[in-house]
Formats: sequence, C-alpha cells, structure tokens
Amino acid sequence: MISKAVIKHLRLLQLKKRRDELGLFPVEGPKLVEELLRNKSWKVAELYATDEWEVPFELSSPEVVRVSENELIQISGQQQPNKVLAVAEMKVANEDISVPASGFHLLLNQIRDPGNLGTIIRIADWFGVDGMFCSVDTVDCYNPKVVQSSMGSLFRVVPVYISLEKLLVENAQSAKLAVYSSHLQGDNLFSADLKKDAFVVMGNESRGVEPALNPFITKSILIPSKSGLNEKAESLNVAVATGIVCSEWLRRFSS
Amino acid sequence: MISKAVIKHLRLLQLKKRRDELGLFPVEGPKLVEELLRNKSWKVAELYATDEWEVPFELSSPEVVRVSENELIQISGQQQPNKVLAVAEMKVANEDISVPASGFHLLLNQIRDPGNLGTIIRIADWFGVDGMFCSVDTVDCYNPKVVQSSMGSLFRVVPVYISLEKLLVENAQSAKLAVYSSHLQGDNLFSADLKKDAFVVMGNESRGVEPALNPFITKSILIPSKSGLNEKAESLNVAVATGIVCSEWLRRFSS
Repeated sequence: MISKAVIKHLRLLQLKKRRDELGLFPVEGPKLVEELLRNKSWKVAELYATDEWEVPFELSSPEVVRVSENELIQISGQQQPNKVLAVAEMKVANEDISVPASGFHLLLNQIRDPGNLGTIIRIADWFGVDGMFCSVDTVDCYNPKVVQSSMGSLFRVVPVYISLEKLLVENAQSAKLAVYSSHLQGDNLFSADLKKDAFVVMGNESRGVEPALNPFITKSILIPSKSGLNEKAESLNVAVATGIVCSEWLRRFSS
Repeated sequence: MISKAVIKHLRLLQLKKRRDELGLFPVEGPKLVEELLRNKSWKVAELYATDEWEVPFELSSPEVVRVSENELIQISGQQQPNKVLAVAEMKVANEDISVPASGFHLLLNQIRDPGNLGTIIRIADWFGVDGMFCSVDTVDCYNPKVVQSSMGSLFRVVPVYISLEKLLVENAQSAKLAVYSSHLQGDNLFSADLKKDAFVVMGNESRGVEPALNPFITKSILIPSKSGLNEKAESLNVAVATGIVCSEWLRRFSS
C-alpha cells in the first residue's frame, strides 16, 4: 500500500522540472533496476515492486515497498509497467569541466528525440567513447524514455551538459583536439585524414549542427552513400550516423 | 466536411488487418505526402488536407478533400497531426521471388519495433542496398510508425515479406550468395573475409537470429566493441548495427 502523496511524488518524476528540483529520476523494469542496483556508483533512494519481483541479491538499502499491480500502473510512466520501479539519485557534473587533452569524445548538439539520445548513449558505451558532452538544449538524459532506450548504458556513460561553444572556444585556445562534424558536404569518412584524439559534433535531427559552432570545426565529414543513385534518403538517422562514425574511429585507431 | 463513415474508414487504416484487406495505407504530413505524390510508381487513392496545405504542384488525381483541423485530428494516427493525410495503394510483392544471383541484400528476422524497421529502410535507401527481405513475423512496413520513421525511404525501398528459411534453402541449393549474420560470438567485421555478393541476416532486438536459420549462415560477424572494458553495453540497437554493417560493405566494395 502506498499513499496518494507517494503516487503523486512518483508521477511528478516524469517531469524534468521536478527531477531537477529533487535530483531524482525513475528507473523501471527488472533488467534496468537490477543493473542499477548492482552498480555501486549510483544511489537508489526508493524501490517499489509487485510481489512478482524477487530481490535478486542481498540489498542493504533501500527497503522494497511492495505495491499492487494497480498501484504500479499508477506510478509507472510506461505503457506496460513491469514489476519494479526504482528512484535513483542523479549524477550532476561539476560545472568546471576542463577540456580533455586526449581521447575520442562525442558532442551532441540539440538532439531532441529521447530514443535517439538513449541509443547514442548505448553506442558510446559499446565503443568505449572517452567522453560525451551535450548542449544544454539536448533532451535530458534522465528523461524516462532516454533511460529506457539506453538499456542500462546510462549507468556507465553519463553525458555532461555544457555550452558546446564554450567548450570549443577553450579547446581552440589550447589547441588540444581536432574537431569534426558530420555534414552532407563533408569529406568521405572512410578516406579522410582523421586524428585519433578528437571531438565529433553530431547535429540536430533536422537542422544539423548550429552555425555558431562552425568556426571551430577542423573538418566536416560525410558518411558516403552509394554513388549513382538518382533518388535516395536525404540523410541517416543521427544515432545510426553516430554509430558508424564511432565504429570508424575504433576500426582505425584501436590497437 | 467528411462523413462519419469516411472518418471510420481512415481510422481503421491504423490496423494491419484492415490495411491488408483494402491494400491501402495512410501517409501523413506535408513532407512525406509530397514525396509520395511526386513518386509516380505509387498510386494515391485519397487525399485529405486542411486549408493550410497548398498543393505543391499540378495534381491530376486524386481530388483534395478539405477537412477542418478537428477532422484532421480525428482521422490522424499521429499525436500532432500535420496538415495533410494521403491514402496510398500498397505494393504487394509477387510471392514467386527468385533468389538473387548477386548484390548486397538485407534479411530482417523478426524485427518488432516499427521505429527500427523504418530506420533500417532509411539505411537501405542511403546505402543503395540491392534488396531487403523480411520474415513474415517482422513488423508490417505499412505500419504508420514505420512509414514515418523511414522518412520517405519506404517509397524507394519496399521490403519483400517471405519465409527467410525458404529463401536460404533455395540460395543454398544454387550456392549463389554468401550468408552472414550479426552475432556476439562472430568474427570481427572489420578484419573478416567478406564477399561482395551477400545476404546479411539481422536478428530480433532481444533474441537475435532464430536457430532455424543457423544451418545456412556462412559466417557470423561481430561489430567489435572497445577491448578491455570491464562493463559495457550488451549489444547495439539493431538499426545502428545494420547501419555499421552496410557502411562496411560500401567501404570495402564500392568502386
């Protein structure tokens, strides 16, 4: 049994404003919740489950609050609630981020679709990307749809929300990393001269990279399409493009 | 003004059963509808639009039925209806498909998420894939979410729904194409010996390729992840994986 106040509290966590106020976000379903509980770098504040969910290993905290199927439906943000809902503490990055001196880093510029961001976090996790920076107008990584589509990768790869312009200005001043962006008029990704240590900027789903960032781009790169086609897709989905770019860096530079 | 019967007819087109009965499917929004109308290989049977939508070029048929905003909301399957809805005739492939003798072909095995299928159709369009075959239990390509996420690529790349087992048996009998599948225990995609003329089987989002197809696989391939990571994503999204595989074929074999 949970009170109306608790139900309201949990439903409000679907909203970014509320999540930011409390520094908390919901995680749903056995697979994600168990991955969260196993990862000791995250603090789990609350845990609600139906009797169907068995605690998979010894838990010191939090206490499991048992709820009915009907209560789970009320507190869940999902169309098909699945046994368990946890509330975890966000990790909020320190605002004084120093510009990385090496490594391969993704910069996401105004990615709006939560499914795309979650999929990109999963890609960054798979390819062991060294860092991930999001413009402040990119969709919130603690949005439940992002958490869900990251398939648990968010627990290992937490994007830093920051002014990309500021980051690139500081990078230019210290001349540390080459900066690439994905662009339809760019050089062929597979034949372009690329540096191992790099920022790669991926732009918005429909508008691409914002003009303010252009002065900082070392080179635009293009994922080539089949030549000689009269009609073809105008572009690739941004998560698919990110996957192809990351795989090319791994192909070239992994020892 | 449209009648209740027309509204009902259009709403029912959200259902696969009804679409299959009539051989019709809905297409929404100015960008997709205009692309559909320009592509003369598709027959557009009905066209509904608010006054906001201007016919972009001379149309011989069908007649534009003007509807109110409220009527558009009633006939639309989208959360944010956008000016225009067309009803087009499906293209149903002949069941006597002959096994291709050459080229690069995708075989989709039980892909269930409409967004994934739409994104894969867009990838196939970008990379000029020669053919795309879907198992009969793959999500319907005329599902409105597939149409939407294909971003118009469905009008150029129409998957053939077929028994993949039958297709692979026939291919094995004639020994035409090499058959690859994406698998977590496969050979490294970037160093494996690959043939230009190929079937690549992409499996279900959670279960992978079904066992019945295994006897026909020439080689399993793996998109490598960064080595030395203790914890990482269990897999990539199937559309992202398809994008990386298609780009590798283009990188190696495009002249």
